[in-house]
Amino acid sequence: MNKPLDGILIADFTHVMAGPYATHLLRLLGAEVIKVEAPGRGDAMRYYGADRRYDGMAPAFTAVNAGKKSVTLNLKNEADLAAAKELVARSDVMVENFRPGVIGRLGLGYEEMRKLNPDLVFCSVSGYGQSGPYRDWPAIDNIVQATSGMMSLSGTPEDPPMRVGFPVVDTLTGQTAAFAILAALLRRERGAGGGEFIDVAMLDASLAFMTSAVGPYLISGKPLQRTGNVGYSGQPTSAMFEAKDGRIVSLGVVQQYQFEALARFLKREDWLADERFADSEARRANATDMQEELGAEICKWNAAELEQAMSEAGIPCGMVRSVAEAAEFPHLKERKVRLPLDFPPLPGDPAPEIINAGFCMGGDGPGVSAPPPELGEHTAEIMEWLGRDRKNRA
Amino acid sequence: MNKPLDGILIADFTHVMAGPYATHLLRLLGAEVIKVEAPGRGDAMRYYGADRRYDGMAPAFTAVNAGKKSVTLNLKNEADLAAAKELVARSDVMVENFRPGVIGRLGLGYEEMRKLNPDLVFCSVSGYGQSGPYRDWPAIDNIVQATSGMMSLSGTPEDPPMRVGFPVVDTLTGQTAAFAILAALLRRERGAGGGEFIDVAMLDASLAFMTSAVGPYLISGKPLQRTGNVGYSGQPTSAMFEAKDGRIVSLGVVQQYQFEALARFLKREDWLADERFADSEARRANATDMQEELGAEICKWNAAELEQAMSEAGIPCGMVRSVAEAAEFPHLKERKVRLPLDFPPLPGDPAPEIINAGFCMGGDGPGVSAPPPELGEHTAEIMEWLGRDRKNRA
Repeated sequence: MNKPLDGILIADFTHVMAGPYATHLLRLLGAEVIKVEAPGRGDAMRYYGADRRYDGMAPAFTAVNAGKKSVTLNLKNEADLAAAKELVARSDVMVENFRPGVIGRLGLGYEEMRKLNPDLVFCSVSGYGQSGPYRDWPAIDNIVQATSGMMSLSGTPEDPPMRVGFPVVDTLTGQTAAFAILAALLRRERGAGGGEFIDVAMLDASLAFMTSAVGPYLISGKPLQRTGNVGYSGQPTSAMFEAKDGRIVSLGVVQQYQFEALARFLKREDWLADERFADSEARRANATDMQEELGAEICKWNAAELEQAMSEAGIPCGMVRSVAEAAEFPHLKERKVRLPLDFPPLPGDPAPEIINAGFCMGGDGPGVSAPPPELGEHTAEIMEWLGRDRKNRA
Repeated sequence: MNKPLDGILIADFTHVMAGPYATHLLRLLGAEVIKVEAPGRGDAMRYYGADRRYDGMAPAFTAVNAGKKSVTLNLKNEADLAAAKELVARSDVMVENFRPGVIGRLGLGYEEMRKLNPDLVFCSVSGYGQSGPYRDWPAIDNIVQATSGMMSLSGTPEDPPMRVGFPVVDTLTGQTAAFAILAALLRRERGAGGGEFIDVAMLDASLAFMTSAVGPYLISGKPLQRTGNVGYSGQPTSAMFEAKDGRIVSLGVVQQYQFEALARFLKREDWLADERFADSEARRANATDMQEELGAEICKWNAAELEQAMSEAGIPCGMVRSVAEAAEFPHLKERKVRLPLDFPPLPGDPAPEIINAGFCMGGDGPGVSAPPPELGEHTAEIMEWLGRDRKNRA
């Protein structure tokens, strides 16, 4: 069996995170991704972070660029621009995340490229999209976390706005772009060929992701309440509690049968006879009492033991883990969620691994083992393949 | 031009959010989605929220079920189970999010279904996956936000763990499932047919989304620091500040040229000559000074004016908005991010709209206008199409 995108070629003019994450997902599915970088420093992400030992191959760069090829091209140089056009002419997909208008001014806009390659799927990724009054506004993850309403959702109504602690907008935008590209490839494959222009905006993609919050506002005209650490259900039994060892557990009891299981598990069958707690409406009305009584039971247990015992009893319960602890869940290796890469670590570092695409397939599923490219590592190989004489280059 | 999934049929055995969001995205791309619900109450999401006027068609249900068809089947009844099998036999894709093992015990597991339909793409969505020691643990959004490390990333090192304020794990899991399904359909289309089993776990998909945080840990062995409201770059100029009107703005100044533009914009060219602020390393080392001086400038401006003026000067800046404010960005309607639905609102409510898939396509892009189905609205039509006599039903 082949990977879904075996034989698909991606001309990748993206940098930093949202764009590279999109082409990373396509690479994991088997596409060949040729990353076009500026000579000199290349993708700024190569230098991400405070530890200068990694310069050129920062861990956050490795995480989303493994198995890609790198060609350095100065797109303001005529010969290099011609090479870029030839690359696009031979590709199935082109992805770029320059500020809107830049790629057109470089001479690589969709209208030009479709003439060279009518079957090209062309995807632009930007902050606010290629149209509309905000198209020229610059944006990065934490700007769109602010403008999209996302920061105003975390915490309680009294809290200041709170950033989601990882670049979730970059990631969700990248996955949205990759999803749209697969849709366009599928249409091309099912029909009579034909390319496509795809316009992915971080703002639009963020609102789509927040559909559980935006949707109720659009239908009812009423904004969702911020519920802090109480889950989306708004139920007092779907919240966080401190265990005996001081660690925090999250409970997710939202259905009546789960509440009954919880009461039995904690030997508090009296709750089932208590009219304050009889059903979910009553528990919502008596949320403070419910949380107080529940907290008093939970703090008799150590967190890890409670998580295991409750989970085995069918009661949704999770211990808050650090990222390091989460990454050590034993089944992640079994399920190939962690992928070892073929390159030597820096002295003192563990054998390098990255995270896979987040799903398993019965057949030849997502994965990669090749290292990320050094800047320009494949320039000679790719220029030769494009029929370009290296001496012509700046 | 056709939509990418025109003519694709999805047998949808999902409920609540992650699974329905996956099939919602496929519906927006043109697939026909037949939602199989239990007689009586159907999908629990129909009753989500505290406002009983919406019962049966809660706003959060509408947001991810528009344009689907609903058939009620009691899967423990022999005649209904036979109808379900016939539906799967005629479908391109089956999606389910029961607890692992349940769909097999019902007689609708992948091994059975592939015999009926060798080209079937079968996708299971669960908390911890269909394999491994945790497969039977129940999980919902706020459980996996805890166990995946996500809650430990937001806030500063002193803060307690903080839930992301919307069901982001449900959404990212749903989009991951939809992405995997497109990949499998593309492989089937490009090859000689052939189905696929896809196993999407909320934990795995969450770790993939957190790759910017997990990746650096896997490579360097060192966990990422929590940076509170400072962005992923860790730079003091990529953070939040209070404006004159008390509203909060997020700045995203990470590149040197952006810092220079910022200094010029605020008429603080002296910063460029100040060795504390000369380059990004210096600014990081003098973060408190930088934020104090920057804060003193920003509080001279009202937030909306500053956002507009800075954005037009090419400096990433965003005002923190509520979800309601974000939904009113004028270009969202132009870009069809907001989709009007064809059904009458409840008295006093606005004309109903939902959020689209988060990207625009040049051709026949994502969209839907049909309302969500009433419970069992299409039972008669679908039973007739399946050649089932309604009198045989329980």
